[in-house]
Amino acid sequence: MRNIKLTIEYDGKGFNGWQKQPNKLNIQGEIEKAIEEITGEEIELIASGRTDAGVHSLGQVANFKTESNIDIEKLPYAINSKLKKSIVIKSAEEVDERFHSRYSVHSKTYRYTINNSKFGTALFRDMEYHFPFKIDENKMNEGAKLFIGEHDFKAFKASGTSSKSSVRIIYNAEVKRDGDRVIIELTGNGFLYNMVRIIAGTLLDVGTGKIEPSEIKSIIESKDRNLAGKTLPARGLCLLKVDY
Amino acid sequence: MRNIKLTIEYDGKGFNGWQKQPNKLNIQGEIEKAIEEITGEEIELIASGRTDAGVHSLGQVANFKTESNIDIEKLPYAINSKLKKSIVIKSAEEVDERFHSRYSVHSKTYRYTINNSKFGTALFRDMEYHFPFKIDENKMNEGAKLFIGEHDFKAFKASGTSSKSSVRIIYNAEVKRDGDRVIIELTGNGFLYNMVRIIAGTLLDVGTGKIEPSEIKSIIESKDRNLAGKTLPARGLCLLKVDY
Repeated sequence: MRNIKLTIEYDGKGFNGWQKQPNKLNIQGEIEKAIEEITGEEIELIASGRTDAGVHSLGQVANFKTESNIDIEKLPYAINSKLKKSIVIKSAEEVDERFHSRYSVHSKTYRYTINNSKFGTALFRDMEYHFPFKIDENKMNEGAKLFIGEHDFKAFKASGTSSKSSVRIIYNAEVKRDGDRVIIELTGNGFLYNMVRIIAGTLLDVGTGKIEPSEIKSIIESKDRNLAGKTLPARGLCLLKVDY
Repeated sequence: MRNIKLTIEYDGKGFNGWQKQPNKLNIQGEIEKAIEEITGEEIELIASGRTDAGVHSLGQVANFKTESNIDIEKLPYAINSKLKKSIVIKSAEEVDERFHSRYSVHSKTYRYTINNSKFGTALFRDMEYHFPFKIDENKMNEGAKLFIGEHDFKAFKASGTSSKSSVRIIYNAEVKRDGDRVIIELTGNGFLYNMVRIIAGTLLDVGTGKIEPSEIKSIIESKDRNLAGKTLPARGLCLLKVDY
Protein backbone atom coordinates (compact mmCIF):
# COMPACT_ATOMS: atom_id res chain seq x y z
CA MET A 1 0.00 0.00 0.00
CA ARG A 2 1.25 3.48 -0.82
CA ASN A 3 0.67 6.21 1.76
CA ILE A 4 0.01 9.63 0.17
CA LYS A 5 0.23 12.94 2.02
CA LEU A 6 -1.68 15.91 0.60
CA THR A 7 -1.41 19.60 1.49
CA ILE A 8 -4.72 21.34 0.96
CA GLU A 9 -5.95 24.93 0.66
CA TYR A 10 -9.66 25.61 0.99
CA ASP A 11 -12.16 28.40 1.28
CA GLY A 12 -14.31 27.25 4.20
CA LYS A 13 -17.26 29.37 3.10
CA GLY A 14 -20.08 27.21 1.84
CA PHE A 15 -18.82 24.03 3.51
CA ASN A 16 -20.08 22.44 6.71
CA GLY A 17 -16.48 22.03 7.78
CA TRP A 18 -13.90 19.33 7.05
CA GLN A 19 -15.67 16.28 8.40
CA LYS A 20 -17.77 13.95 6.30
CA GLN A 21 -21.46 14.14 7.15
CA PRO A 22 -24.39 12.81 5.15
CA ASN A 23 -26.29 15.37 3.05
CA LYS A 24 -24.01 18.24 4.05
CA LEU A 25 -21.34 19.68 1.80
CA ASN A 26 -17.98 18.99 3.44
CA ILE A 27 -14.36 19.13 2.38
CA GLN A 28 -13.33 15.59 3.32
CA GLY A 29 -16.21 14.10 1.34
CA GLU A 30 -15.46 16.20 -1.76
CA ILE A 31 -11.80 15.18 -1.84
CA GLU A 32 -12.49 11.51 -1.08
CA LYS A 33 -15.00 11.42 -3.94
CA ALA A 34 -12.43 12.94 -6.32
CA ILE A 35 -9.71 10.45 -5.28
CA GLU A 36 -12.12 7.51 -5.53
CA GLU A 37 -13.01 8.52 -9.08
CA ILE A 38 -9.32 8.54 -9.98
CA THR A 39 -8.19 5.38 -8.18
CA GLY A 40 -11.37 3.34 -8.47
CA GLU A 41 -10.89 2.39 -4.81
CA GLU A 42 -12.78 3.35 -1.69
CA ILE A 43 -10.35 5.40 0.38
CA GLU A 44 -10.33 7.15 3.76
CA LEU A 45 -8.79 10.58 3.96
CA ILE A 46 -7.38 11.35 7.42
CA ALA A 47 -6.75 15.03 8.22
CA SER A 48 -4.49 16.60 10.86
CA GLY A 49 -7.75 17.61 12.52
CA ARG A 50 -11.22 18.80 11.64
CA THR A 51 -11.97 22.39 10.85
CA ASP A 52 -15.41 23.85 11.51
CA ALA A 53 -17.89 25.29 9.06
CA GLY A 54 -16.51 28.54 7.62
CA VAL A 55 -12.92 27.97 8.78
CA HIS A 56 -10.28 28.27 6.03
CA SER A 57 -7.03 26.48 5.33
CA LEU A 58 -3.84 27.39 3.55
CA GLY A 59 -2.05 24.24 4.71
CA GLN A 60 -4.31 21.46 5.96
CA VAL A 61 -2.59 18.06 5.71
CA ALA A 62 -4.38 14.78 5.06
CA ASN A 63 -3.23 11.30 4.03
CA PHE A 64 -4.78 8.22 2.43
CA LYS A 65 -3.64 4.73 1.49
CA THR A 66 -3.95 3.38 -2.01
CA GLU A 67 -2.98 0.47 -4.25
CA SER A 68 -3.15 2.80 -7.25
CA ASN A 69 0.12 3.33 -9.11
CA ILE A 70 -0.74 6.82 -10.35
CA ASP A 71 2.32 9.08 -10.85
CA ILE A 72 2.67 11.22 -7.70
CA GLU A 73 3.59 14.27 -9.85
CA LYS A 74 0.31 14.02 -11.74
CA LEU A 75 -1.89 13.31 -8.75
CA PRO A 76 -2.61 16.94 -7.66
CA TYR A 77 -3.59 17.85 -11.25
CA ALA A 78 -5.90 14.82 -11.42
CA ILE A 79 -7.59 15.53 -8.09
CA ASN A 80 -7.86 19.31 -8.66
CA SER A 81 -9.52 18.70 -12.03
CA LYS A 82 -12.37 16.97 -10.19
CA LEU A 83 -12.74 19.46 -7.32
CA LYS A 84 -14.68 22.68 -6.89
CA LYS A 85 -12.45 25.76 -7.19
CA SER A 86 -12.85 26.38 -3.46
CA ILE A 87 -10.53 23.40 -2.72
CA VAL A 88 -6.99 23.16 -4.13
CA ILE A 89 -4.50 20.34 -3.57
CA LYS A 90 -1.20 22.24 -3.24
CA SER A 91 1.10 19.20 -3.12
CA ALA A 92 1.17 15.41 -2.93
CA GLU A 93 4.02 13.26 -1.71
CA GLU A 94 4.57 9.62 -0.94
CA VAL A 95 5.38 9.07 2.72
CA ASP A 96 6.36 6.24 5.03
CA GLU A 97 3.52 3.82 5.81
CA ARG A 98 3.66 4.84 9.48
CA PHE A 99 2.88 8.51 8.71
CA HIS A 100 -0.52 9.49 10.13
CA SER A 101 -1.82 13.02 9.51
CA ARG A 102 -3.30 13.31 12.99
CA TYR A 103 -1.10 11.20 15.27
CA SER A 104 2.20 12.30 13.72
CA VAL A 105 1.56 16.06 14.11
CA HIS A 106 4.37 18.01 15.77
CA SER A 107 2.65 21.41 15.62
CA LYS A 108 -0.13 23.33 13.96
CA THR A 109 -0.23 27.04 13.23
CA TYR A 110 -3.48 28.99 13.10
CA ARG A 111 -4.12 32.61 12.21
CA TYR A 112 -7.10 34.67 13.35
CA THR A 113 -7.70 37.93 11.46
CA ILE A 114 -9.60 40.86 12.93
CA ASN A 115 -10.53 43.66 10.55
CA ASN A 116 -10.22 46.73 12.73
CA SER A 117 -11.39 49.34 10.21
CA LYS A 118 -14.39 51.53 10.87
CA PHE A 119 -16.67 50.07 8.23
CA GLY A 120 -15.22 46.62 7.54
CA THR A 121 -14.23 45.03 4.29
CA ALA A 122 -16.10 43.97 1.16
CA LEU A 123 -13.31 42.01 -0.50
CA PHE A 124 -12.23 40.01 2.55
CA ARG A 125 -15.61 39.81 4.30
CA ASP A 126 -15.54 36.00 4.47
CA MET A 127 -11.97 35.81 5.78
CA GLU A 128 -11.91 38.46 8.49
CA TYR A 129 -13.93 39.31 11.58
CA HIS A 130 -14.91 42.97 11.63
CA PHE A 131 -14.45 44.78 14.94
CA PRO A 132 -14.72 48.58 14.48
CA PHE A 133 -13.64 49.84 17.91
CA LYS A 134 -10.14 50.85 18.98
CA ILE A 135 -7.94 47.93 20.05
CA ASP A 136 -4.37 47.95 21.31
CA GLU A 137 -2.40 45.24 19.53
CA ASN A 138 0.64 45.73 21.79
CA LYS A 139 -1.36 44.84 24.88
CA MET A 140 -2.86 41.90 22.99
CA ASN A 141 0.62 40.69 22.11
CA GLU A 142 1.69 41.04 25.74
CA GLY A 143 -1.31 38.91 26.77
CA ALA A 144 -0.66 36.38 23.99
CA LYS A 145 2.79 35.61 25.37
CA LEU A 146 1.17 34.26 28.57
CA PHE A 147 -0.41 31.42 26.58
CA ILE A 148 3.03 30.07 25.68
CA GLY A 149 3.98 26.86 27.49
CA GLU A 150 2.20 23.73 28.69
CA HIS A 151 -1.14 24.51 30.30
CA ASP A 152 -4.50 22.97 31.00
CA PHE A 153 -6.63 24.97 28.55
CA LYS A 154 -9.98 23.88 29.96
CA ALA A 155 -11.09 27.55 30.19
CA PHE A 156 -10.53 27.84 26.41
CA LYS A 157 -12.54 24.85 25.30
CA ALA A 158 -16.13 24.88 24.04
CA SER A 159 -18.26 23.74 26.96
CA GLY A 160 -19.92 20.36 26.63
CA THR A 161 -17.13 18.83 24.56
CA SER A 162 -15.50 15.52 25.47
CA SER A 163 -13.58 15.26 28.73
CA LYS A 164 -10.24 13.91 27.57
CA SER A 165 -7.16 15.81 28.69
CA SER A 166 -7.28 19.52 27.98
CA VAL A 167 -3.53 19.97 28.47
CA ARG A 168 -1.80 21.39 25.40
CA ILE A 169 1.51 23.08 24.63
CA ILE A 170 1.58 26.47 22.90
CA TYR A 171 4.99 27.00 21.28
CA ASN A 172 4.40 30.47 19.97
CA ALA A 173 1.75 33.19 20.21
CA GLU A 174 1.91 36.58 18.57
CA VAL A 175 -0.34 39.52 17.78
CA LYS A 176 0.61 42.13 15.22
CA ARG A 177 -1.04 44.91 13.27
CA ASP A 178 -0.86 45.21 9.48
CA GLY A 179 -2.71 48.43 8.65
CA ASP A 180 -6.37 47.89 9.50
CA ARG A 181 -5.82 44.20 10.28
CA VAL A 182 -4.90 42.78 13.66
CA ILE A 183 -3.49 39.28 13.20
CA ILE A 184 -3.26 36.64 15.92
CA GLU A 185 -0.97 33.67 15.23
CA LEU A 186 -0.75 30.62 17.45
CA THR A 187 1.46 27.54 17.12
CA GLY A 188 0.85 24.57 19.38
CA ASN A 189 1.00 20.80 19.56
CA GLY A 190 -2.77 20.69 19.32
CA PHE A 191 -5.86 22.78 19.94
CA LEU A 192 -9.11 21.94 21.74
CA TYR A 193 -12.47 22.46 20.13
CA ASN A 194 -12.94 26.23 19.50
CA MET A 195 -9.73 26.94 21.44
CA VAL A 196 -8.19 29.35 18.92
CA ARG A 197 -11.45 31.26 18.54
CA ILE A 198 -11.87 31.55 22.34
CA ILE A 199 -8.24 32.67 22.76
CA ALA A 200 -8.86 35.27 20.01
CA GLY A 201 -11.98 36.48 21.82
CA THR A 202 -10.06 36.74 25.10
CA LEU A 203 -7.22 38.65 23.44
CA LEU A 204 -9.82 40.98 21.94
CA ASP A 205 -10.96 41.73 25.51
CA VAL A 206 -7.34 42.61 26.28
CA GLY A 207 -7.24 44.80 23.16
CA THR A 208 -10.29 46.83 24.18
CA GLY A 209 -9.03 47.19 27.75
CA LYS A 210 -11.84 45.09 29.24
CA ILE A 211 -9.18 42.97 30.93
CA GLU A 212 -5.45 43.46 31.60
CA PRO A 213 -2.86 41.36 29.72
CA SER A 214 -1.69 39.87 33.04
CA GLU A 215 -5.19 38.47 33.73
CA ILE A 216 -4.62 35.83 31.02
CA LYS A 217 -2.58 33.89 33.59
CA SER A 218 -5.38 33.67 36.14
CA ILE A 219 -7.98 32.85 33.48
CA ILE A 220 -5.87 29.88 32.36
CA GLU A 221 -5.44 28.79 35.99
CA SER A 222 -9.17 29.09 36.74
CA LYS A 223 -10.02 26.42 34.12
CA ASP A 224 -13.36 28.24 33.98
CA ARG A 225 -14.81 28.79 30.49
CA ASN A 226 -16.94 31.65 31.86
CA LEU A 227 -13.87 33.75 32.63
CA ALA A 228 -12.46 33.55 29.09
CA GLY A 229 -13.73 35.72 26.24
CA LYS A 230 -16.29 35.06 23.54
CA THR A 231 -15.81 32.52 20.76
CA LEU A 232 -15.09 34.71 17.73
CA PRO A 233 -16.74 33.78 14.39
CA ALA A 234 -15.30 30.97 12.28
CA ARG A 235 -14.68 33.12 9.19
CA GLY A 236 -11.66 34.88 10.75
CA LEU A 237 -9.85 31.59 11.33
CA CYS A 238 -7.35 29.96 8.98
CA LEU A 239 -5.20 26.85 9.46
CA LEU A 240 -1.85 28.06 8.12
CA LYS A 241 0.32 24.96 8.34
CA VAL A 242 0.90 21.63 10.01
CA ASP A 243 4.43 20.52 10.87
CA TYR A 244 5.54 16.91 11.37
CA MET B 1 -26.51 71.73 -2.80
CA ARG B 2 -24.05 69.65 -0.80
CA ASN B 3 -21.42 67.72 -2.73
CA ILE B 4 -20.52 64.40 -1.08
CA LYS B 5 -17.42 62.36 -1.86
CA LEU B 6 -17.47 58.63 -1.06
CA THR B 7 -14.59 56.15 -0.94
CA ILE B 8 -15.79 52.67 -1.85
CA GLU B 9 -14.48 49.12 -1.52
CA TYR B 10 -16.14 46.39 -3.56
CA ASP B 11 -15.80 42.77 -4.51
CA GLY B 12 -16.34 42.89 -8.27
CA LYS B 13 -17.38 39.26 -8.45
CA GLY B 14 -21.06 38.93 -9.24
CA PHE B 15 -21.39 42.46 -10.62
CA ASN B 16 -21.52 43.53 -14.24
CA GLY B 17 -19.04 46.25 -13.40
CA TRP B 18 -19.48 49.75 -12.01
CA GLN B 19 -21.75 51.26 -14.64
CA LYS B 20 -25.52 51.35 -14.40
CA GLN B 21 -27.20 49.09 -16.96
CA PRO B 22 -30.79 47.93 -17.04
CA ASN B 23 -31.43 44.39 -15.72
CA LYS B 24 -27.79 43.79 -14.84
CA LEU B 25 -26.45 43.91 -11.31
CA ASN B 26 -24.00 46.82 -11.12
CA ILE B 27 -22.27 48.73 -8.37
CA GLN B 28 -23.34 52.26 -9.32
CA GLY B 29 -27.00 51.25 -9.39
CA GLU B 30 -26.84 49.51 -6.01
CA ILE B 31 -25.28 52.52 -4.29
CA GLU B 32 -27.56 55.05 -6.00
CA LYS B 33 -30.59 53.02 -4.88
CA ALA B 34 -29.31 52.97 -1.28
CA ILE B 35 -28.67 56.75 -1.27
CA GLU B 36 -32.05 57.46 -2.85
CA GLU B 37 -33.78 55.46 -0.11
CA ILE B 38 -31.99 57.55 2.51
CA THR B 39 -32.33 61.01 0.96
CA GLY B 40 -35.65 60.53 -0.83
CA GLU B 41 -34.08 62.27 -3.83
CA GLU B 42 -33.05 61.00 -7.23
CA ILE B 43 -29.27 61.30 -7.32
CA GLU B 44 -26.48 60.64 -9.81
CA LEU B 45 -23.34 59.01 -8.52
CA ILE B 46 -20.26 59.95 -10.56
CA ALA B 47 -17.21 57.68 -10.18
CA SER B 48 -13.54 58.37 -10.95
CA GLY B 49 -14.06 55.93 -13.80
CA ARG B 50 -15.87 52.71 -14.59
CA THR B 51 -14.52 49.35 -13.62
CA ASP B 52 -15.37 46.25 -15.65
CA ALA B 53 -17.24 43.15 -14.56
CA GLY B 54 -15.15 41.23 -12.02
CA VAL B 55 -12.72 44.10 -11.28
CA HIS B 56 -12.35 44.94 -7.58
CA SER B 57 -11.83 48.18 -5.68
CA LEU B 58 -10.25 49.09 -2.39
CA GLY B 59 -10.49 52.82 -3.08
CA GLN B 60 -12.93 53.81 -5.81
CA VAL B 61 -14.11 57.42 -5.39
CA ALA B 62 -17.53 58.73 -6.39
CA ASN B 63 -19.51 61.88 -5.63
CA PHE B 64 -23.13 62.98 -5.68
CA LYS B 65 -25.07 66.16 -5.00
CA THR B 66 -27.86 66.33 -2.49
CA GLU B 67 -30.20 68.72 -0.67
CA SER B 68 -30.39 66.27 2.23
CA ASN B 69 -29.03 67.50 5.55
CA ILE B 70 -28.03 64.05 6.83
CA ASP B 71 -25.07 64.08 9.23
CA ILE B 72 -21.93 63.28 7.21
CA GLU B 73 -20.61 61.10 10.07
CA LYS B 74 -23.71 58.91 9.94
CA LEU B 75 -23.95 58.69 6.16
CA PRO B 76 -21.60 55.68 5.61
CA TYR B 77 -23.47 53.68 8.29
CA ALA B 78 -26.80 54.55 6.68
CA ILE B 79 -25.69 53.62 3.16
CA ASN B 80 -23.84 50.44 4.25
CA SER B 81 -26.92 49.22 6.10
CA LYS B 82 -28.77 49.16 2.78
CA LEU B 83 -26.01 47.60 0.67
CA LYS B 84 -25.01 44.02 -0.05
CA LYS B 85 -21.93 42.98 1.92
CA SER B 86 -19.88 42.98 -1.29
CA ILE B 87 -19.92 46.81 -1.31
CA VAL B 88 -18.64 48.91 1.62
CA ILE B 89 -18.58 52.70 1.87
CA LYS B 90 -15.25 53.35 3.63
CA SER B 91 -15.67 57.10 4.10
CA ALA B 92 -17.85 60.08 3.26
CA GLU B 93 -16.82 63.72 3.25
CA GLU B 94 -18.34 66.98 2.18
CA VAL B 95 -16.34 68.62 -0.60
CA ASP B 96 -16.30 71.84 -2.58
CA GLU B 97 -19.10 72.10 -5.15
CA ARG B 98 -16.52 72.11 -7.95
CA PHE B 99 -15.14 68.68 -6.99
CA HIS B 100 -15.88 66.11 -9.72
CA SER B 101 -14.80 62.48 -9.18
CA ARG B 102 -13.76 62.03 -12.80
CA TYR B 103 -12.57 65.44 -13.98
CA SER B 104 -10.69 66.33 -10.82
CA VAL B 105 -8.56 63.14 -10.73
CA HIS B 106 -4.83 63.68 -10.32
CA SER B 107 -3.84 60.01 -10.42
CA LYS B 108 -5.20 56.50 -10.06
CA THR B 109 -3.35 53.45 -8.77
CA TYR B 110 -4.20 49.95 -9.93
CA ARG B 111 -2.82 46.61 -8.81
CA TYR B 112 -2.78 43.44 -10.88
CA THR B 113 -2.09 40.21 -8.95
CA ILE B 114 -0.70 37.08 -10.59
CA ASN B 115 -0.77 33.90 -8.50
CA ASN B 116 2.42 32.16 -9.59
CA SER B 117 2.03 28.96 -7.56
CA LYS B 118 1.90 25.56 -9.23
CA PHE B 119 -1.74 24.77 -8.46
CA GLY B 120 -3.32 28.17 -7.80
CA THR B 121 -5.35 29.37 -4.87
CA ALA B 122 -8.72 28.41 -3.40
CA LEU B 123 -9.08 31.31 -0.97
CA PHE B 124 -8.10 34.10 -3.37
CA ARG B 125 -9.38 32.52 -6.59
CA ASP B 126 -11.58 35.51 -7.44
CA MET B 127 -8.87 38.10 -6.75
CA GLU B 128 -5.84 36.64 -8.49
CA TYR B 129 -4.96 35.35 -11.95
CA HIS B 130 -3.29 31.96 -11.76
CA PHE B 131 -0.23 31.50 -13.95
CA PRO B 132 1.70 28.34 -12.98
CA PHE B 133 4.88 28.69 -15.07
CA LYS B 134 8.15 30.28 -14.00
CA ILE B 135 8.24 34.08 -14.34
CA ASP B 136 11.06 36.47 -13.59
CA GLU B 137 9.68 39.42 -11.60
CA ASN B 138 12.96 41.35 -11.87
CA LYS B 139 12.78 41.40 -15.65
CA MET B 140 9.12 42.37 -15.40
CA ASN B 141 10.03 45.25 -13.13
CA GLU B 142 12.74 46.36 -15.58
CA GLY B 143 10.14 46.33 -18.36
CA ALA B 144 7.56 48.11 -16.21
CA LYS B 145 9.88 51.11 -15.76
CA LEU B 146 9.71 51.76 -19.53
CA PHE B 147 6.01 52.57 -19.22
CA ILE B 148 6.79 55.54 -16.96
CA GLY B 149 6.31 58.94 -18.62
CA GLU B 150 3.93 60.47 -21.15
CA HIS B 151 3.23 58.14 -24.05
CA ASP B 152 0.60 57.39 -26.64
CA PHE B 153 -0.70 54.07 -25.27
CA LYS B 154 -2.68 53.13 -28.38
CA ALA B 155 -1.00 49.68 -28.42
CA PHE B 156 -2.40 49.06 -24.92
CA LYS B 157 -6.01 49.91 -25.58
CA ALA B 158 -8.81 47.46 -26.34
CA SER B 159 -9.32 47.58 -30.12
CA GLY B 160 -12.58 49.04 -31.31
CA THR B 161 -12.86 51.54 -28.47
CA SER B 162 -13.44 55.25 -29.05
CA SER B 163 -10.76 57.24 -30.84
CA LYS B 164 -10.19 60.11 -28.44
CA SER B 165 -6.58 60.78 -27.46
CA SER B 166 -4.73 57.72 -26.19
CA VAL B 167 -1.93 59.79 -24.62
CA ARG B 168 -1.58 59.17 -20.88
CA ILE B 169 1.07 59.76 -18.22
CA ILE B 170 2.29 56.87 -16.07
CA TYR B 171 3.86 58.25 -12.88
CA ASN B 172 4.96 54.97 -11.41
CA ALA B 173 5.16 51.33 -12.42
CA GLU B 174 6.49 48.51 -10.31
CA VAL B 175 6.54 44.72 -10.21
CA LYS B 176 7.42 42.81 -7.06
CA ARG B 177 7.11 39.28 -5.73
CA ASP B 178 5.49 38.43 -2.41
CA GLY B 179 5.91 34.67 -2.01
CA ASP B 180 3.79 33.01 -4.70
CA ARG B 181 2.29 36.32 -5.78
CA VAL B 182 3.67 38.63 -8.44
CA ILE B 183 2.15 42.07 -8.03
CA ILE B 184 2.06 44.76 -10.69
CA GLU B 185 1.27 48.31 -9.54
CA LEU B 186 0.66 51.21 -11.88
CA THR B 187 -0.06 54.86 -11.08
CA GLY B 188 -1.10 57.19 -13.85
CA ASN B 189 -3.22 60.22 -14.68
CA GLY B 190 -5.69 57.93 -16.40
CA PHE B 191 -5.96 54.56 -18.09
CA LEU B 192 -7.51 53.57 -21.41
CA TYR B 193 -10.06 50.79 -21.68
CA ASN B 194 -8.36 47.50 -20.63
CA MET B 195 -4.99 49.30 -20.48
CA VAL B 196 -3.87 47.89 -17.12
CA ARG B 197 -4.86 44.36 -18.09
CA ILE B 198 -3.01 44.63 -21.43
CA ILE B 199 0.09 46.08 -19.75
CA ALA B 200 -0.08 43.19 -17.24
CA GLY B 201 -0.30 40.69 -20.12
CA THR B 202 2.67 42.30 -21.84
CA LEU B 203 4.72 42.26 -18.63
CA LEU B 204 3.80 38.60 -18.24
CA ASP B 205 5.39 38.02 -21.67
CA VAL B 206 8.50 39.71 -20.29
CA GLY B 207 8.35 37.48 -17.21
CA THR B 208 8.24 34.26 -19.22
CA GLY B 209 11.05 35.44 -21.51
CA LYS B 210 8.82 35.61 -24.58
CA ILE B 211 9.99 39.21 -25.05
CA GLU B 212 12.88 41.23 -23.62
CA PRO B 213 12.20 44.08 -21.14
CA SER B 214 13.69 46.58 -23.63
CA GLU B 215 11.09 45.63 -26.25
CA ILE B 216 8.42 47.47 -24.22
CA LYS B 217 9.78 50.70 -25.71
CA SER B 218 9.25 49.64 -29.32
CA ILE B 219 5.82 48.16 -28.57
CA ILE B 220 4.71 51.52 -27.14
CA GLU B 221 6.15 53.33 -30.18
CA SER B 222 4.46 50.95 -32.63
CA LYS B 223 0.98 51.96 -31.40
CA ASP B 224 0.00 48.50 -32.64
CA ARG B 225 -2.31 46.53 -30.32
CA ASN B 226 -1.15 43.29 -31.98
CA LEU B 227 2.38 43.70 -30.67
CA ALA B 228 1.32 44.03 -27.02
CA GLY B 229 0.40 41.03 -24.85
CA LYS B 230 -2.92 39.46 -24.03
CA THR B 231 -5.59 41.16 -21.93
CA LEU B 232 -5.36 39.34 -18.60
CA PRO B 233 -8.62 38.40 -16.81
CA ALA B 234 -10.56 41.01 -14.84
CA ARG B 235 -10.42 39.15 -11.52
CA GLY B 236 -6.72 39.96 -10.97
CA LEU B 237 -7.35 43.71 -11.17
CA CYS B 238 -8.05 46.02 -8.25
CA LEU B 239 -8.39 49.83 -8.15
CA LEU B 240 -6.32 50.69 -5.08
CA LYS B 241 -6.79 54.45 -4.80
CA VAL B 242 -7.63 57.67 -6.54
CA ASP B 243 -5.74 60.84 -5.69
CA TYR B 244 -7.02 64.39 -6.23
